[in-house]
Amino acid sequence: MSQENTPKKVAVILSGCGVYDGSEIYETVLTLLRLDQNGATYQCYAPDANQHHVVNHITGEEMADTRNMLVEAARLARGDIRVLSDLDSAKYDALIIPGGFGAAKNLCDFAFKGKDVEVRADVKAAVQSFKTDGKPVGLMCIAPVMSAHLFGEGVQCTIGNDADTAAAVSATGAEHQECPVHDIIVDSSNKLVTTPAYMLAGSISEAASGIFKLVDTVLGLTD
Amino acid sequence: MSQENTPKKVAVILSGCGVYDGSEIYETVLTLLRLDQNGATYQCYAPDANQHHVVNHITGEEMADTRNMLVEAARLARGDIRVLSDLDSAKYDALIIPGGFGAAKNLCDFAFKGKDVEVRADVKAAVQSFKTDGKPVGLMCIAPVMSAHLFGEGVQCTIGNDADTAAAVSATGAEHQECPVHDIIVDSSNKLVTTPAYMLAGSISEAASGIFKLVDTVLGLTD
Repeated sequence: MSQENTPKKVAVILSGCGVYDGSEIYETVLTLLRLDQNGATYQCYAPDANQHHVVNHITGEEMADTRNMLVEAARLARGDIRVLSDLDSAKYDALIIPGGFGAAKNLCDFAFKGKDVEVRADVKAAVQSFKTDGKPVGLMCIAPVMSAHLFGEGVQCTIGNDADTAAAVSATGAEHQECPVHDIIVDSSNKLVTTPAYMLAGSISEAASGIFKLVDTVLGLTD
Repeated sequence: MSQENTPKKVAVILSGCGVYDGSEIYETVLTLLRLDQNGATYQCYAPDANQHHVVNHITGEEMADTRNMLVEAARLARGDIRVLSDLDSAKYDALIIPGGFGAAKNLCDFAFKGKDVEVRADVKAAVQSFKTDGKPVGLMCIAPVMSAHLFGEGVQCTIGNDADTAAAVSATGAEHQECPVHDIIVDSSNKLVTTPAYMLAGSISEAASGIFKLVDTVLGLTD
């Protein structure tokens, strides 16, 4: 049965709303824009759990506040968001996770433990379900630090060219590859696509160049 | 002295971060993307004052929380934001204000008073300074409800085609014109450009179509 005229459906996992304590806003919006421009539909998800902390984005300092990832990420989804534990990969063709410190503080603990990173169980279950289904996954910015935990040793990915972060990623068992901001790294056997985005981007257009390429490639890898 | 090679500088006024209580995120990011794609630079500003309220973007209900417009809008600016009262129009070529309920709840009180809307003094001072300088201003989504207070009676603008909102805008003294989502209304004598954006947009690509046209036109109206 041909599905050529059926729009591709993509799940997007968010971790809050803001580069320093949640999902990077520009990366998320550029992802959704490109999906829509390609005729794909999307559904945002986030864990129903508190953020690690709340950061004042002017000062960079922690605020005496508690915010929930799902509630804050709903801002990035104009209210249309679902609980990550309800994500059923059978309903989607692909999965994308934008970056921002929320990916490294909330979805996993890389920001605190580096190479000893552990990934939230609901994030791991969701990503591995797509992997098991043979469906492509896109990770951007700092999110690829989870690659080895999600896809196993030897998985190819990029976080750009930061030496310390790349060394930590390699220490987790992934095979880190340097990559410029406008490009992507594709691990064909795992159907994993990664791009540096704001690990390297000096402008929103630069971020868009790599993110658009990631989205196009992820959609191209769907059946 | 030719300024042909000098990038255009655009000030962007924000009102928080999230469609229901602050600046509409997609409208803001699409504005910044298009400015950057055109080689223009931008600087975000916001009032240093509390939002009218904080809305849970999943339920639409008010939360028992207090948030500051400047601090929250900093999320949309990746930390690079300034206090609106410090905005000096002499340093910029144009001004753009995205929509979202923050424009109608925080920058003015249209959401509560309709045609009897009053505009914050710092917003009014900023916009009128650009007007006095003969520099273009772009307002999108619900923000054009402030047009008559900012530019005077008879100013031409659009909020799309919602009859009740259009009637209220007309009652303020503005000349409302219906406009589809992909288009703009230009009041040449006031150098005011408006577009419906998420007053009408059914998708992020639709929003982008009108917003990109607004940004291009605002830049085209600069000297």
